[in-house]
Amino acid sequence: MNLKESVGIKAASYVKNGMTIGLGTGSTAYYMIKEIGRKVKEEKLDIIGVPTSATSKKQAEEIGIPIKSIDEVEKVDLIIDGADEISADFQGIKGGGAALLFEKIVATYTDQVIWIVDESKMVDKLGEFPLPVEVVPYGQEQLFRLFTKKGYHPSFRKEENKLKVTDSGHSIIDLHLKQIADPKRLAKELDETVGVVEHGLFLDMVNTVIVGKQNGPEIISSIR
Amino acid sequence: MNLKESVGIKAASYVKNGMTIGLGTGSTAYYMIKEIGRKVKEEKLDIIGVPTSATSKKQAEEIGIPIKSIDEVEKVDLIIDGADEISADFQGIKGGGAALLFEKIVATYTDQVIWIVDESKMVDKLGEFPLPVEVVPYGQEQLFRLFTKKGYHPSFRKEENKLKVTDSGHSIIDLHLKQIADPKRLAKELDETVGVVEHGLFLDMVNTVIVGKQNGPEIISSIR
Repeated sequence: MNLKESVGIKAASYVKNGMTIGLGTGSTAYYMIKEIGRKVKEEKLDIIGVPTSATSKKQAEEIGIPIKSIDEVEKVDLIIDGADEISADFQGIKGGGAALLFEKIVATYTDQVIWIVDESKMVDKLGEFPLPVEVVPYGQEQLFRLFTKKGYHPSFRKEENKLKVTDSGHSIIDLHLKQIADPKRLAKELDETVGVVEHGLFLDMVNTVIVGKQNGPEIISSIR
Repeated sequence: MNLKESVGIKAASYVKNGMTIGLGTGSTAYYMIKEIGRKVKEEKLDIIGVPTSATSKKQAEEIGIPIKSIDEVEKVDLIIDGADEISADFQGIKGGGAALLFEKIVATYTDQVIWIVDESKMVDKLGEFPLPVEVVPYGQEQLFRLFTKKGYHPSFRKEENKLKVTDSGHSIIDLHLKQIADPKRLAKELDETVGVVEHGLFLDMVNTVIVGKQNGPEIISSIR
């Protein structure tokens, strides 16, 4: 069993009967969804899954997890999702898989947030991982120039040599910042930038981090 | 000639040879685009139009105005657009025509902003006109409940009994606020709300307002 698989299985142990579960997107979340699917089938686990992307929706449907959209539930009890970087003070960057918008929407209406990662994602300060910014296609070249002027070293996310299109029909601009001195200030600035739909800074959001390690998953609470 | 037409024609007189012009959307902007089209044809006016909606794009194309997207120009010299409400301190609400996102994107990269309105749009304080908020469809019911809890009296924009879909594939939630005590505070709050793509508060943006009046268009500069 690889580290991602053991973390995914560990995370699935937090899922209890009757819960509404946000289903994250990514290579570690894949194993979590797979394990939840196994429990639904073999242990008659009774839950509702709320997907965070077309990918997690498809996987959940194929595996037999009953799913609802975020709009069809009152709230979500628990979301289990990956992260691309987690700082020492438990702030996160997400969106490497281009699902940041739906992931943030679902997390916004969720009681408890668990991020599942491998050790390489745990950093002192955020910013080595390029910060994904989801943008409206109309005006994206102007936005790109603005980010360039600000010294944010933007690049358009591509897939097979074409601009990546998100599940909502937007583009992704990755900001190569190296280090983010003040994530809250940057988040506010991006929120207020016209044409920005959402960004990958997930601040004051996570409750529990499960880190894959050689000797087994480590569970860290963000409550200080 | 009706008031909207005389305002539209007056506004078009600001358009000079060589300019790149943002083409607004709405019933008054219609006459402005029509007049610019006439000047392009009859007076060989040499300009580039940058549309703010599928509607203004279509009208400009049909009438023979050369158009480019906001991403194909360096910047826009002048945008002429309607507004749904303008306060005594020249803050605006836009989006009654559901084109607020592209209108704000184009205005963001524009040197000079002219709003063309009839007298009924000039108010003391903003808020009697429902504030349009453009939102991501995934999670829009949650957002609607959040706005309800906050006392913002939301309603979904509909068209022929179905949810209105914007040019970007988003929905519109109108907030029936009656009076907005602090537009800047509300703008910040909406900017930071997950799922909100853009809102109809256009703050510190307009340079000149042209108001249709019985005895001719009145020109008001916002520079205090």
